[in-house]
This record gives sequence, structure tokens and C-alpha cells, in this order.
Amino acid sequence: MLDCLKTQFGNPSSNHSFGRKAHELVEESRDKVARSIGALPQEVFFTSSGTESNNWFVSGISSVYPDAHFYYGATEHPCILKPMQKLKNSGMHVKKIPCLPRGGIDFNYLETINSDQINIISIMHVNNETGAITDLKKFRKLVGDKAIIHSDAVQALGKIDLNFHELGIDFMTISSHKINGPQGIAALIIKNGIDIDPFILGGGQESGMRSGTENIASIAGFAKACELNSEKLQDSSRQGALRDLFESKISELGAVIFAQAEPRIENTSFFGFPSIDGATLITALDKYGIGIASGSACSSNNKEPSHVLIEMGMDPITAQSAVRLSLSTLNTQDDVLYLIDKIKYEVKRLTSFASILN
Amino acid sequence: MLDCLKTQFGNPSSNHSFGRKAHELVEESRDKVARSIGALPQEVFFTSSGTESNNWFVSGISSVYPDAHFYYGATEHPCILKPMQKLKNSGMHVKKIPCLPRGGIDFNYLETINSDQINIISIMHVNNETGAITDLKKFRKLVGDKAIIHSDAVQALGKIDLNFHELGIDFMTISSHKINGPQGIAALIIKNGIDIDPFILGGGQESGMRSGTENIASIAGFAKACELNSEKLQDSSRQGALRDLFESKISELGAVIFAQAEPRIENTSFFGFPSIDGATLITALDKYGIGIASGSACSSNNKEPSHVLIEMGMDPITAQSAVRLSLSTLNTQDDVLYLIDKIKYEVKRLTSFASILN
Repeated sequence: MLDCLKTQFGNPSSNHSFGRKAHELVEESRDKVARSIGALPQEVFFTSSGTESNNWFVSGISSVYPDAHFYYGATEHPCILKPMQKLKNSGMHVKKIPCLPRGGIDFNYLETINSDQINIISIMHVNNETGAITDLKKFRKLVGDKAIIHSDAVQALGKIDLNFHELGIDFMTISSHKINGPQGIAALIIKNGIDIDPFILGGGQESGMRSGTENIASIAGFAKACELNSEKLQDSSRQGALRDLFESKISELGAVIFAQAEPRIENTSFFGFPSIDGATLITALDKYGIGIASGSACSSNNKEPSHVLIEMGMDPITAQSAVRLSLSTLNTQDDVLYLIDKIKYEVKRLTSFASILN
Repeated sequence: MLDCLKTQFGNPSSNHSFGRKAHELVEESRDKVARSIGALPQEVFFTSSGTESNNWFVSGISSVYPDAHFYYGATEHPCILKPMQKLKNSGMHVKKIPCLPRGGIDFNYLETINSDQINIISIMHVNNETGAITDLKKFRKLVGDKAIIHSDAVQALGKIDLNFHELGIDFMTISSHKINGPQGIAALIIKNGIDIDPFILGGGQESGMRSGTENIASIAGFAKACELNSEKLQDSSRQGALRDLFESKISELGAVIFAQAEPRIENTSFFGFPSIDGATLITALDKYGIGIASGSACSSNNKEPSHVLIEMGMDPITAQSAVRLSLSTLNTQDDVLYLIDKIKYEVKRLTSFASILN
């Protein structure tokens, strides 16, 4: 990225050497990203965020197929939920695929979908709050070959093996900062031969599909992160062991672990102490340099309980207690023991508070 | 930017210290950008490109005012032209404000606009090919106080003094890489109290107006470039003198200078040698390490002649010869003399070629 910022300031669309070098850098980066996820380079379209990629999918596919039947998973991120709501408001056929109390989607519901009509579906590969994994190959079998499937795989990249073509889907969203790459760069993967309208119109960058001068340094950083990602994946069982240790200890303290019975990515624990508000626990741990998050970083300033837990049938009070621990590949057993120790102390302190107030 | 990439990798939406620090950095950057253009911090909304800002304006304002009358300048960038064409295709009232052969817009046309209806207008402050400046204060007087005016000021930032509130407009697009900031970061400036729908929906970043995890390093770089920009502006008369020297010399060689009689920014020369294709001249000069561009970098791979020159009434053959020289604040008189020397040599060589072929 430094090399890009210092020397590659050509505009990739310009025809002089400065521009051509920048263009080559973007194309080399596209190759690297494609290779890391089992896609073709021409299937990779850079965007500024997973949010933009998801918005693009909903907006761009609905203008190609306005009469299709649209489906989305109940626990999708707001950047799918809100654009889908917009389609619904405009009178299109839009339906929610429910989820089960364990956190997974209701596969039985899929059998009610008429596979003779054009079905366009957006379903997360890994939930950003619970870490629950959706089996996309099984999903494809149940909805049939004709359905157009998009998967928000932002939370899957770097956590589980991700091969676009093997998954049998048509569109996929991935984002750089989930694999320690820079923030503000992502991609929409579009299967060769599938039609979608562009979201941002203009000078015709990204083969006319996503206009705007490219953020070359961020693109190069994303590509490098993808290269390094394959190596790091090996660490996930180690993270899983640490996560399980963590969960067994906090269960003893009275924590509820959400979606624990569902197949989950190994670095994530979504939990809560019923008498303690999640925001309170975040603040309490922050003073030790521990950064845990509310369900979704995006909705941290939102006072509503996690919509994911509500969809799972959780009561709002318990849902309000939820916080998320995401272990990095760099975290050690000592880190986790330190965390458990601090949680033990803070839970005791905050519970005593709660009992005075009640 | 380096500090951000190395240490500020928190998510600005998270409530822990890492997130709050990142959030503070984004807000400090917003202050710096706002101050440099005479806007309030809460009027600055970061986007990934000038193209996105322009698309957002057209899309977001048209959904608030679907029955308004939309106007755009004839020589706007494709990232305004194409979204406007989309509105027109959907049956909305969309009209083009013509330009004059000199390169400026036709102010007489504005008197034909009925100021009792809701008029929504997008008009460039500085043209990206010719460098022609539109007097926005005069423009406002002619279209009346009720009109909602957006100006694409991407090419104005860093070239002329830019004060959002003094210009009397409601929306403005600016972009970082035009002032030596990083690529892929820009802003839409939205006057306090003016309604517009968001373009990208999701987690609610940028006060709910532009969702997606922020590209913090790029935002910080943009802010720094804005800070430095005020100092560099002093150099523009020096650039103007170099540009005038350049134009007087190439005129002697038979060059046509486009929009020369129009008020223009001082670093830009848009010119052509009638018998030489612009793309050929770019390639010829590239071998000397000289990077001149076709009219717009974005349309370099487009074989069509510049739409700006066509709108100015130029014949397609002459328009096809057009290339653009943009002087940086770092360019010296020696650079310009070197360029003139190489152009002299190449024009002679290429003209002799042309006469053999004809």
C-alpha cells in the first residue's frame, strides 16, 4: 500500500505510462483476490464496502428482474434488509426466510418456494453476530438451479474455506477489513454470464459495472490480505479451542451463549449475562484494553436489541445483554484467561449493582 | 495515513476505545475538510469517489422530488449525464442546459426556465476537460432562490477559491485525488436543512446518510490534502503563466486551443493538432515520460470524440485531436520548455506520416 501511495498515483483509466502502471496494479490485485476465493478475475468487481456490494446486488438485480420473487434471510445485515424493504415498499414481491431459535435458517421454509417462478435470494454465508454458518450447497439443492443466489460472505472470508464456484452461488460479497486488510474496500463477485445493472454510473471503470476512480492503495492492500489469508486459515482450530475454553468458563458464571448448538465459525462467541446490559459490559471491559462489541459494530449506537436474536425468538431483555467476542488469529490463551478473569470480576460487580437497583 | 493504517484499525461504529479513536479521527477529518471549503462539518458526507457523490445527488434528490424539473449542463461528466438519462428513461422531466461554442454554458437559456416550478439543477463549477469556469453566483441569480443547485466542483477544488456557502449552492461534490490526496475518497456536501435520500443503506454511518465501514486512512489523507491545499492555491498564477507560455508556443505550431476565450482554471490547456489523433499524441509523448491525457481520463478507452467538444459545436475530426495538459503545482518552466520541444518534434514527425497516408 505504501508503494501505491508513494509512486502509483496514476489514474488507471489514463493511457500514459503512469496510468497503465496503476491499471496493471489493479488487475494484478483482481487476480490475487479471485484466486483466493476460487473465482475468475473477471468475476471480481471492487467496491468501497460490503455494504455497497450488498446494496448493489439488490438494486442491480431488481432492475433486471422487477417481476421476480425476492427472498432474504431473517438475520441478514441491515445493508440487505433495508434495500429489500425498499423493494417491498415499491410493490415488488419480497419475502423473509425465517430462522430457527438455534440461529440457523429454517430450511423447511425453502420447500414452500415455487421453483417455477424466478426466485432471487440473498442469504448470509456466516451471520455477523452469532457466527452461525449457512450450508449454501444444501441451500442450492432446496431452491433449485434456476434461483439466483447472492451470499453475503463478509463474515465467512478468513474464517472458513471459501470457494465461490464450489458453493454454487451466483453473487458473493466479501470485504477486506475482515481479514486484516484496509477498511473501505470490498468486492461483489458476479458469476460469469449473469446479468445485473451497474449501481454507480459514470466513466465506465470495472468493465462499466462500477464507475469511479479506483482506490488503488486500498485495492492493493485488500489483495495482499487475501494472499496472506490462506496461510492464516490454518489457525482457526486453535481459535476454536480458545473460544470453547472461554465459553465453558463464562457459562459457569451464568452466561447465555447464543447459537451455540449451530455450526459456527470458530473465532466468534455471542453471549450475554441476563442481568447486565451489553453496553455496560462493553464499557466495563474497555478500561482493561479489551475490545468486545455489541452484536454488530454498525448498530452499536442503536439502542434496539439485536434483530438477529429477536428473529431467533429471544426475549428483548435477554437480547439486550448480548455482546460479541471475536478472537483474532493473534490472540493467545493468556489473552483469553485475562479476559475471563476480568469478566468474572466485572460480572460480580455489575450484578451486585443490579441487585441494589432492583 | 500511515498512522491510521498501522494503529487506527478500530471500527468507528464500535463502542470500545479502538472504535472511539477511529471515530474521532473521522470527525477531525470532517472538520478539516469542512473548514477548507467554507462548509459546516455536519454538511460533509464522505463517499468513495466524485462519481459516487454525483450519482448519490441525482438518485437521492429525485426520489424526494420525483415530480420536479431536472436540468443538467451539456458538458457534465458521464457520472451526471448517465444518472440523468436514467431519470429521463423513467419518464421524469429532464432537460439539458446547452453550452456555447466558447465552452461556457448558455446563460440565456436559464431565462426560459419557469422559476415557479421545483427546479433541480446539476451544473459543473469547472469543466474537467476544458477547465472552463461557470460563475455559480450569476447562475443562482438567474434561476432564482427556489431552485436546488448541485455543483460538481471536483475540478475546482485546489484550482480556484472554493467557499460552499458563498457560492449559494445546495450540494457540492469534491474529490481527494484532484488535490494530491489519495484516490478513491471524496465527499458530497449537503447544505444544512436540505432533504435528500441516502444512496447506500445499511448500518447507518455518516448520520444514516451513507452506510458502510469508513475508509479511515483515505479519509485522513483527504483531510490532510485539504489542509495543504490552501497553501498551494497561491501557486496558480505561476501555473497560469506557464500554461500561457505553452499555449503561445503550440499555437505557432498550428494547435487549436479549446475554450481559450472562456474564463478557465490556470493549470489546464485543452488543445489539439487537427491532423493528429489525440491518442497518437499521448503515445508519442509517453516515451519521454510526459503524461498528457485525453479529455477525460475516465473516457480514455472510449473511441468517441470528447462529448464536451461536440456540445461546443466542434466537428468530430477536430474533437478527435483533443488532448489535455494539466500542470501540477510542482511543474517548472523547464518542464514546460521540455514539453514544447518534444511536441514540436513529434508533431513534425506525425504530420509527415499523415501526409504520406493522405
